Amino acid sequence: MPVPSPPLPAPDALAQARLLVAPSLNPDLVRELERITGRRAEPLTDVPQPSDAPLLCVGNALPDALRTDRLLWFHSVNAGTDPLLAGGPWPAPALLTRTVGRMGERIAQYVLGWTLAECQSVPEFTGQHARAHWERLPSELVAGQTALVYGTGRIGAAVGRLLAACGVRTVGVARTTRYGPAPGTDRVVPPGFDRLIAAAEDTAVLGEARWVISTLPLTAATEGFFGAERFAAVRGATFVNVGRGATVDLGALETALRDRRVRRAVLDVLPAEPAAPEDPVWQLPRTVITSHSAGITTDEDIAVDFAACWEDVTTGRRPGLAVDTGRGY
Amino acid sequence: MPVPSPPLPAPDALAQARLLVAPSLNPDLVRELERITGRRAEPLTDVPQPSDAPLLCVGNALPDALRTDRLLWFHSVNAGTDPLLAGGPWPAPALLTRTVGRMGERIAQYVLGWTLAECQSVPEFTGQHARAHWERLPSELVAGQTALVYGTGRIGAAVGRLLAACGVRTVGVARTTRYGPAPGTDRVVPPGFDRLIAAAEDTAVLGEARWVISTLPLTAATEGFFGAERFAAVRGATFVNVGRGATVDLGALETALRDRRVRRAVLDVLPAEPAAPEDPVWQLPRTVITSHSAGITTDEDIAVDFAACWEDVTTGRRPGLAVDTGRGY
Repeated sequence: MPVPSPPLPAPDALAQARLLVAPSLNPDLVRELERITGRRAEPLTDVPQPSDAPLLCVGNALPDALRTDRLLWFHSVNAGTDPLLAGGPWPAPALLTRTVGRMGERIAQYVLGWTLAECQSVPEFTGQHARAHWERLPSELVAGQTALVYGTGRIGAAVGRLLAACGVRTVGVARTTRYGPAPGTDRVVPPGFDRLIAAAEDTAVLGEARWVISTLPLTAATEGFFGAERFAAVRGATFVNVGRGATVDLGALETALRDRRVRRAVLDVLPAEPAAPEDPVWQLPRTVITSHSAGITTDEDIAVDFAACWEDVTTGRRPGLAVDTGRGY
Repeated sequence: MPVPSPPLPAPDALAQARLLVAPSLNPDLVRELERITGRRAEPLTDVPQPSDAPLLCVGNALPDALRTDRLLWFHSVNAGTDPLLAGGPWPAPALLTRTVGRMGERIAQYVLGWTLAECQSVPEFTGQHARAHWERLPSELVAGQTALVYGTGRIGAAVGRLLAACGVRTVGVARTTRYGPAPGTDRVVPPGFDRLIAAAEDTAVLGEARWVISTLPLTAATEGFFGAERFAAVRGATFVNVGRGATVDLGALETALRDRRVRRAVLDVLPAEPAAPEDPVWQLPRTVITSHSAGITTDEDIAVDFAACWEDVTTGRRPGLAVDTGRGY
């Protein structure tokens, strides 16, 4: 049974609401939030006293003391609201909205950036330059190469589209349950992909890939998804993970890197973040870790998405960025 | 008066021709040339004795002793044939063809690769990884930024098209004499560009640019083209040169880098190449030199282009890759 959506904040309640913002937000962003809402911001740290005015909060965490019916609306500065919802019971009437920003576009440019940087020997030329060493290095043309992109949703499709613009042959890998293969049924190929396969068929195709790119979310079905069996089918591809760290068995990845079945790895995400300096993950051969930066949201994203939600709420529309707090996304 | 094109090599002369290849060519490529022409290759070093058979040569330089009427056809492994033509008088009846390969596509991927690598902090993350240091770094989205691309020919257009695929606003800068601004005449905007301006108008637009990319050839009009005046109009753009080194006044570039009007520089070409380790060019701030590697031709390019020329000549067609030896390109 779907949980009914809470009503939108009433105009008079919103007019009275006090604006609380996480102390970590930059002053320019806070000024922008003040401008949008027409009121002064106070720090989102504890229950403001003495007023019992309703609360409009912008931040990444909700103190327990604010999980009350005084909470009118919480805007998350992140796309993922699972930590917020898991942090305690959600006050049922409160609206929860989130920042998505331009994450698909950002992640796609991250993937293409690291792909082309490898083809163009960016780290090697940077190293040569530091040694004042002139030496021609061959470049690799991505046009005509094959990329397997795991996950064919909004982010996977954005990755596929951008790689395709550079002439890469893009194969989307989707869950069997979603797209097939039902006998006699044509599969629907989402935009950005030349071809679509089911996850169960991928080992037959992994050997063709120059690039193996994961945008997979973490679910019971994807934990440890990239394990020994899958990596055994790789023949010289570079592995790029912009999904979730725990979808990868790091021991299996290490073996595949040492065997050179995996050429290089670019890991934006790890099973445990942040990685401490003594974490052995830094010792994986031919690997770069990018500290969960691929789909970062900027102050501009937060301001733009909050302004859109504000416009929706104040004109009586349910924001497209509202979270179904029962479902969790 | 155009010089009339020499006739194509006659079939019986081509059948008898000896195949001479530059000793620098890789053995696999030589085998491929032997396969295409159906004969054994000999080294392109001196006049082969004792036969007076006609000669079919593949290489990058022509010894004086071979600049005779025995030369039937020379295929250049490079795109630029000016050193070949400047090395001595060209024997009029000889066909000259060249390798273009996928240079436009390669240079475009080089430009996009370095552009995105800067936006994605590829060198910084590589450095952090070497120190086992986890730290989020903001990325920059190229979408919506402006690139000025100098040169609107085949290579400039390929650069423009690929940047446009990432959402970059592309402004092509062409010579006044070619496109521009004749009163009452609409300018033709070449594909790959959102907008076209004449070189004389560029200082008004340089301030908007996040990227200034030169694909300019070296001519009397472009020597020192990027000098103090032009760099003074730049407001924080990164300068990428994939054209010719002598189009840039390196002293003016250094000043602009020190003033931070130029944010970074990526130089594939220099006025004097190769740069020795003691060359002060290595000390330019925030600069990477990539050793004239952007438009490299590969063995595959040479084999593919030579095969196309062979197919044309043996079926009586003038190759599209034939050089007008009077005009020089």
